[in-house]
Amino acid sequence: MKSRKLSRADVQEHLRTTRNWGRWGDDDEVGTPNLITPAKRLEAARLVQSGQVISLSRPWPTEPGPGNAHPAQHFMQRMDKPGGAGLAEDFIGAEFHGKTVTHIDALSHAWDSDGMWNGRSPDEEITFSGAKWGGVQAWRDGLVTRGVLLDVPRHRGQAYVAIDRPVHGWELEEIALAQGTPLTPGDGVVVYSGREAWDREHDAWAGLAERPGLDASCLWFLREHDCALIVWDMTDRMPNGYDLPFGNHAAIFAYGLALVDMALLEPLAEACRAAGRWEFMLVISPLPINGGTGSPVNPLAIL
Amino acid sequence: MKSRKLSRADVQEHLRTTRNWGRWGDDDEVGTPNLITPAKRLEAARLVQSGQVISLSRPWPTEPGPGNAHPAQHFMQRMDKPGGAGLAEDFIGAEFHGKTVTHIDALSHAWDSDGMWNGRSPDEEITFSGAKWGGVQAWRDGLVTRGVLLDVPRHRGQAYVAIDRPVHGWELEEIALAQGTPLTPGDGVVVYSGREAWDREHDAWAGLAERPGLDASCLWFLREHDCALIVWDMTDRMPNGYDLPFGNHAAIFAYGLALVDMALLEPLAEACRAAGRWEFMLVISPLPINGGTGSPVNPLAIL
Amino acid sequence: MKSRKLSRADVQEHLRTTRNWGRWGDDDEVGTPNLITPAKRLEAARLVQSGQVISLSRPWPTEPGPGNAHPAQHFMQRMDKPGGAGLAEDFIGAEFHGKTVTHIDALSHAWDSDGMWNGRSPDEEITFSGAKWGGVQAWRDGLVTRGVLLDVPRHRGQAYVAIDRPVHGWELEEIALAQGTPLTPGDGVVVYSGREAWDREHDAWAGLAERPGLDASCLWFLREHDCALIVWDMTDRMPNGYDLPFGNHAAIFAYGLALVDMALLEPLAEACRAAGRWEFMLVISPLPINGGTGSPVNPLAIL
Amino acid sequence: MKSRKLSRADVQEHLRTTRNWGRWGDDDEVGTPNLITPAKRLEAARLVQSGQVISLSRPWPTEPGPGNAHPAQHFMQRMDKPGGAGLAEDFIGAEFHGKTVTHIDALSHAWDSDGMWNGRSPDEEITFSGAKWGGVQAWRDGLVTRGVLLDVPRHRGQAYVAIDRPVHGWELEEIALAQGTPLTPGDGVVVYSGREAWDREHDAWAGLAERPGLDASCLWFLREHDCALIVWDMTDRMPNGYDLPFGNHAAIFAYGLALVDMALLEPLAEACRAAGRWEFMLVISPLPINGGTGSPVNPLAIL
Repeated sequence: MKSRKLSRADVQEHLRTTRNWGRWGDDDEVGTPNLITPAKRLEAARLVQSGQVISLSRPWPTEPGPGNAHPAQHFMQRMDKPGGAGLAEDFIGAEFHGKTVTHIDALSHAWDSDGMWNGRSPDEEITFSGAKWGGVQAWRDGLVTRGVLLDVPRHRGQAYVAIDRPVHGWELEEIALAQGTPLTPGDGVVVYSGREAWDREHDAWAGLAERPGLDASCLWFLREHDCALIVWDMTDRMPNGYDLPFGNHAAIFAYGLALVDMALLEPLAEACRAAGRWEFMLVISPLPINGGTGSPVNPLAIL
Repeated sequence: MKSRKLSRADVQEHLRTTRNWGRWGDDDEVGTPNLITPAKRLEAARLVQSGQVISLSRPWPTEPGPGNAHPAQHFMQRMDKPGGAGLAEDFIGAEFHGKTVTHIDALSHAWDSDGMWNGRSPDEEITFSGAKWGGVQAWRDGLVTRGVLLDVPRHRGQAYVAIDRPVHGWELEEIALAQGTPLTPGDGVVVYSGREAWDREHDAWAGLAERPGLDASCLWFLREHDCALIVWDMTDRMPNGYDLPFGNHAAIFAYGLALVDMALLEPLAEACRAAGRWEFMLVISPLPINGGTGSPVNPLAIL
Repeated sequence: MKSRKLSRADVQEHLRTTRNWGRWGDDDEVGTPNLITPAKRLEAARLVQSGQVISLSRPWPTEPGPGNAHPAQHFMQRMDKPGGAGLAEDFIGAEFHGKTVTHIDALSHAWDSDGMWNGRSPDEEITFSGAKWGGVQAWRDGLVTRGVLLDVPRHRGQAYVAIDRPVHGWELEEIALAQGTPLTPGDGVVVYSGREAWDREHDAWAGLAERPGLDASCLWFLREHDCALIVWDMTDRMPNGYDLPFGNHAAIFAYGLALVDMALLEPLAEACRAAGRWEFMLVISPLPINGGTGSPVNPLAIL
Repeated sequence: MKSRKLSRADVQEHLRTTRNWGRWGDDDEVGTPNLITPAKRLEAARLVQSGQVISLSRPWPTEPGPGNAHPAQHFMQRMDKPGGAGLAEDFIGAEFHGKTVTHIDALSHAWDSDGMWNGRSPDEEITFSGAKWGGVQAWRDGLVTRGVLLDVPRHRGQAYVAIDRPVHGWELEEIALAQGTPLTPGDGVVVYSGREAWDREHDAWAGLAERPGLDASCLWFLREHDCALIVWDMTDRMPNGYDLPFGNHAAIFAYGLALVDMALLEPLAEACRAAGRWEFMLVISPLPINGGTGSPVNPLAIL
């Protein structure tokens, strides 16, 4: 898309006219990951050159703090056996949607007044025993595809994305071209905004009511390139600027897009800069929670 | 190893004389996954031929039942936004060690009277706030390697491993050779014993006090081939037959072996039989829980 | 009531014709505990003679076992302070409805096709963030009243209630009279059926699909005497014998009755037998969980 | 005690010289609640005059906020039965020590360099499966005694205790005498400091690093009067002013005192002022968690 000033109505109209409802059948619960074909996975595997692997996950966040209103739980147990042997076990628990656990959003996670992904009704589908539609188990065989890092701070010559300069779709386009990594259907786009660098200089991004991030104009980019998924460290800018319930998170119900929130991308950005490469094999493996609205994940980039 | 009758003393002596303590330094918390070099990962990626991907994880087990004394938790939440938009979120929790959650054991999970991996003391290392030694975060960059399925039921011409005929190390050796997939250092060995077929004909394997599985003679196999990890559906036979605190789970503290318990392997076995191939790219991505004794995982086999 | 053979239609008609809907106003969420007036509490306090106090709660059931499909959670934490001081803390969690945690049922806990207490609709009132109607916080000031133990095993000269001889309403009537403790409005009736004695001779009561307990004819007794609450160790017999969704649990939505399930009554029965007294001050103090469907409680009998 | 300036050494010496270790035997895990005799409970019951009952518990705090770093959990479930009947159930969970859940501290909760209650060692007693010493189940039969409200704001003619004027032991003495309610052994002292009034005018007390409360001089008061327990809304002032690990919380391990933190006392204070009475029957009923370091409670004052 070209750079231009968007209105609330522009975004709403775009979502309605370009949404993928029915594209893979009315009963499809997979969404854009349908674009990850076996051939695409094979292409992804062929991208591995050095065998270096990098985690895109933040540590399990048990410490309360800004943006961590519901800390993840981790409790230890120890069981001794006769003769000095023994076992240590633990309990983990999390309300993983939030600002601190790296997690994937399932298609059941969000909706607007037109409904959930493929037009389903949340009143019908969201039940006390799990989502009957768009549960994360639809992606139980993982998301394995070509990953492309779009390094916004490097492109801007700045350490991080600032509040007054959100990331726009046309800038992602520029970066992809400048890096020599144009996107192809089924790709996993990884948008690095410099969250750790921000945190070193400011109050923690996770705790901010007003915070830097991506503008809803990125919806055009995600849709035009038929991205299968997005991984990002800063997510939507807040407020989103259009008085809409969702910014780019609207891609969940409009496109059926898989969305990995709260990733840790600085190590990947450093590795990509060092290698002078911006594409890699990306592997995301959600826990198969029937009716789940998402899952904690530890995405891996294999260079 | 050759087929022979083993005694308790044989197993104990083997563990003490062949253990990997100090092999990667006294301060190493990674263990056999050290054998997964960048070159090994590259080799694994080169194994991808069809791009088919298969989950090796059982569903998140929220239903109580045989072998599921502490069911995994899954609670839903729904938050409505003005104008008909909304969000669904959930809480998940699990004491994941057990018989029903597919999970990886960290090196902090088990020890005998000689100590934990690399000789550390559980009294020093197992604390209320997590394991100070051998926590699962040591594998935060994932385990990406060549996977080799050893299909015991196919080799035996039976549907599943029975109680009176445990799997021995020499049989794994035979199978690997018969399949044309000899093991090389750093491999992830995936031992299929037919758990689902067993469950269709008997009381659920998970709930049995006496149950079929692998004999401790497999320790020789794992050590001789320098396996980086094992994924299995049936785990150790019970009782282990040697009056030892652990059967093959002793590989955790003796070799530093990564061990994925309670995998779902029938779909992979079917795919391998259909493809006539027994090797693939294996990707396991634990949640980076600092001081964790393991993690739920959804291992992926990419063929 | 007189002893007679009841039919399904009898129970249904009784519930509809005698229910307390509207008795304390259409917006009342308190139910029969409205019958516990300040004067009633004063009367209860005057019953204290010896000052002996007895807990009616079973231990916090963290061990899985028959009838304990979702064990209560208890995890320890330890925090050391400089100079050798320190703190121990813990996490507790429970799906407390079930067969093992002593708990009170709030009026939001159960309904039939006519609706919840006072005719409200569960579709309107049961939300993801709690019950909007009949939450346990309606009883936040506790239930303090006269308690009367009805000792069925003593009356029968047997150790426990057996499967083929459920407790009927007319038998409770006989026992109350034989003990010299006729019931008065607002009383808390405590029905002892000998659960511990049963457990010593049979498979644990909690794990049984068919189990001894109270017949739905006790509904007449509870209603005629305007009981404010019932505390019992065996609850409804299973199956209830009338092919109804609920036996005496129907008192929750029909009468607005407070119901304390899974109490431990053997110690109280022994104390009452020793003292030759069957009435006492009863204090039940639910946690004020807004919108909760009940609460774990430790009821106290003060003799 | 007389009003005087205390030093760190004064407090330490007082704790060591007046502690109750051995007073009820070396194996006693009950502590000062031993002072609540049957006669004391009878005396408490005789205090009931109006039959008014008041909860001293704050609501179950599921909302994150200042001082609520680990919000209590409350998740709903709904199960429909054939024919329109159904059940609602819930899960509750809490790390209840903290600033928002009204809870009782067991004798296993705190220690200093001299050890736990009765001189036991935390290294021996605090285990992964619970405290072996001083678990809250020691109080399973509840704490039923005479309660005396000491209304500090009323005595001072101010709405709440301020940071620069902590509550001292000699002031509690004055208040008790001024109110005409001298303390007797086994009493439950209820110290009202006006927390809600503070919260209406300041940042929430729960979230403050420096906050008003009771000075360690109250230890003298608690010990001299042989109080069985204390219930308070503000707890120890912070910092405690003596560079000690604990202020009045030291009474846990020194005296074996039962301590109810984070109570809601404004309603009780209003009722006492209205009635012109400051004593009542106090009933506290902890959940019998074996090895627990405390329990959420809903204390009841019966006037």
